[in-house]
Amino acid sequence: MNYSPITETVRTRICAELGSECALHAPEALAPYGRDASELCHTPELVILPKTTEQVSQLLRLANELRFPVTPRGAGTGLSGGCLTPFGGVVLSLERMDRILAIDADNLVAEVEPGVITQTLRDAAQAKGLFYPPDPAGMDKSTIGGNAATNAGGPACLKYGVTRDYVLGLEAVLPTGEVIRAGTRTRKGVVGYDLARLIVGSEGTLGIITGLTLKLIPHPKAVAGMAAVFPSMAMAMRAVSEIMRRGFLPSALEFMDHKCIGLVRDLLPFPAPEGQAAMLVIESDGAAGQVGADIEAMAAVCSELGATGILRARDQAEAGRVWAARRAVSLRIHDSAPLYMSEDIVVPLGNIAELAAELPGFEERFGLKVYAFGHAGDGNMHLNVTAPDKSHKPRAMEGARAILARVLELGGTISGEHGIGEAKMPFVPMELSPASMRLQKGIKRLFDPNLILNPGKIFEDL
Amino acid sequence: MNYSPITETVRTRICAELGSECALHAPEALAPYGRDASELCHTPELVILPKTTEQVSQLLRLANELRFPVTPRGAGTGLSGGCLTPFGGVVLSLERMDRILAIDADNLVAEVEPGVITQTLRDAAQAKGLFYPPDPAGMDKSTIGGNAATNAGGPACLKYGVTRDYVLGLEAVLPTGEVIRAGTRTRKGVVGYDLARLIVGSEGTLGIITGLTLKLIPHPKAVAGMAAVFPSMAMAMRAVSEIMRRGFLPSALEFMDHKCIGLVRDLLPFPAPEGQAAMLVIESDGAAGQVGADIEAMAAVCSELGATGILRARDQAEAGRVWAARRAVSLRIHDSAPLYMSEDIVVPLGNIAELAAELPGFEERFGLKVYAFGHAGDGNMHLNVTAPDKSHKPRAMEGARAILARVLELGGTISGEHGIGEAKMPFVPMELSPASMRLQKGIKRLFDPNLILNPGKIFEDL
Repeated sequence: MNYSPITETVRTRICAELGSECALHAPEALAPYGRDASELCHTPELVILPKTTEQVSQLLRLANELRFPVTPRGAGTGLSGGCLTPFGGVVLSLERMDRILAIDADNLVAEVEPGVITQTLRDAAQAKGLFYPPDPAGMDKSTIGGNAATNAGGPACLKYGVTRDYVLGLEAVLPTGEVIRAGTRTRKGVVGYDLARLIVGSEGTLGIITGLTLKLIPHPKAVAGMAAVFPSMAMAMRAVSEIMRRGFLPSALEFMDHKCIGLVRDLLPFPAPEGQAAMLVIESDGAAGQVGADIEAMAAVCSELGATGILRARDQAEAGRVWAARRAVSLRIHDSAPLYMSEDIVVPLGNIAELAAELPGFEERFGLKVYAFGHAGDGNMHLNVTAPDKSHKPRAMEGARAILARVLELGGTISGEHGIGEAKMPFVPMELSPASMRLQKGIKRLFDPNLILNPGKIFEDL
Repeated sequence: MNYSPITETVRTRICAELGSECALHAPEALAPYGRDASELCHTPELVILPKTTEQVSQLLRLANELRFPVTPRGAGTGLSGGCLTPFGGVVLSLERMDRILAIDADNLVAEVEPGVITQTLRDAAQAKGLFYPPDPAGMDKSTIGGNAATNAGGPACLKYGVTRDYVLGLEAVLPTGEVIRAGTRTRKGVVGYDLARLIVGSEGTLGIITGLTLKLIPHPKAVAGMAAVFPSMAMAMRAVSEIMRRGFLPSALEFMDHKCIGLVRDLLPFPAPEGQAAMLVIESDGAAGQVGADIEAMAAVCSELGATGILRARDQAEAGRVWAARRAVSLRIHDSAPLYMSEDIVVPLGNIAELAAELPGFEERFGLKVYAFGHAGDGNMHLNVTAPDKSHKPRAMEGARAILARVLELGGTISGEHGIGEAKMPFVPMELSPASMRLQKGIKRLFDPNLILNPGKIFEDL
């Protein structure tokens, strides 16, 4: 595609229609919008910060007329470059559309604008005794619109499902500038094709989400947690499988390998072992009378499967420190190595021990250090591939490709929750068949005939 | 569209390619395939009963070459005519593709062919301590492929979600005859657009589901139930809202109005009151120590909100009789009136009492009898519009339209789980905007350029 640059004339036209108070174009103002949490960087030519759906619609109509690309952005916490601008053009940041319009306790729904911070929504729901479960690691910064665009996951998704399962309906501005409602405001609905859930997870390539109706559920009355340390990752993974097989459905079942433990040891509220150990962090929520018993039973499974230590947080503050350590892993890996690629694979539960056991082989073969942590209970492992210098990139890509090929052999998928964006685009044809790709590209062209919305993402060519 | 009839030559060609043992064409063999659970009837020209995906693919390639319509069918338990053939052609019945390929307790998934009976799958899962929650009323006959095609609901969906939430991945034959995999075999996956959940709920108009990977969860350890009788439907509905507002998430929260109670009184294991009463059927599942306490607490809410009777099933057999009565309602209404239209609306929880209170007004205004029952906990009310003779049909349609208009005013949807099929096609433009319809029709044409798959459904024109 040949896109028009954002010339002075184009910018003036945009500002005339949308109002100049929503435009940023000074280089120092643009710079932060050129990055997300990946290694990629593409600085946009202009940033637009709308406050209304109408402004979003106006911008997209102009983009079609003048043929410049528009890339939507939440808080820029993504790990795949999905909100960056490899073709230049406009970043449309939804950060100012940040109102919670309703937390409706009668109907157990929330009505929100896309720029609401995930944690803010969770807090507002909890204040009314309600629960919005999806809890991506960056939820203190990430926006609900970005979560919906990427179908974000998180630890609680094992028990409660992913963002998609909480989006009842949405308002979206199509790439043509038309505004549609998709889905419902009710808990069920089967009228026509499921455009709401087609737009959710489409990484801002099919439409810009400008409003969301979210499902809320009663807030669990109690929560209890523990951590367990195992002599090896394979043993920890076998405990994960066994916990699920025995019929427990914990509200979190996270793991980290010994390399990750090493990076966050100072943050943990208890002494964590040295050596090849791996750690599970397990949480149970529900009725006050039940959660403690569940945790004790799961602790017993861990001991039976070879855990060398069972660590209980003695209070809320200690539990908070365990979670802070878990959430800090990603950033500390990022800071620890000049070359960093965040893979986000899922394998069937029964195969996680096998894959874990094979990781040292990949490290050796490709000269890499692979940090593994994530959501063991649903098979979603974050494999952070690092190398001591940036020149190692081609070899690291080769290593990542080999790991992903093995994941697919094991019946898995190459991305569980981070999405494709730009970073994982080269790997997509490993998983999707040509017929599936053809349909998906057809859907893209149907929604966005001039390909002005978020180009250079998901598919290498359209 | 002009479709080719299934001439002797066409039939011979189909039989030559697929094998004649999978074809039915005697009139008495075709007749049952001309009906579902609606009032509609369209007898097909030919029925094909494939055993393999390859046969499905072959049939669709022929359909494109020779331009005859193909309509997929599970068990024909649908209420909207979705599996019938208003344009003639071939019914493709998946009933012989009925193998459970795996109930995988390590990975908590089932791999099934589409013709597996829903109840058979539920039983097979339970035998391994696992649970497949969706429980549409016809689950002793309906197929899992039909459930997926229509995104079927049921009482348990209040707590556990609908069929869509349990389809991790699927194999589908596209209208062109190509075979694709969509979705994953894992519990998460965000690679590309969500074709799996676009095909789920598309009512057999985008592809024919030939295999499914379904999510299973640990089977709840215990279940307890009760029924509560209220002097009026509006009072019962207020109790429903209050139960949800107090933070309970029952595994079923069903209701029936006094007309429905009258029809199934003989089936109930306890004396049900006469007069304007309405009944709630409430079930709680989960930990053995919890469900009894939850039921007692919900019974207390019912009493507080004016229930005049709390009825407990004394054992499993009595509980079974309550559910048999609940499930028999639909059939008994059908048998009770010559004209019968099954509407399937959803309103926000906070509005169900209001809508319930308005129903007598609609009955009077349009000369109808409206039976109301269904899934109160998620706002999904089955409104069965009946009249004493078939000549009343135009007036009944007018009445249905007026009720649906009111439902939309209240923030609801015109179909919660039965789908559009042919029966509700005229009402679709009341809910979907022209821009949304245009996109959906575009998706249909992208998947099915010759419009050979299940024509005459969802959209009045394409």
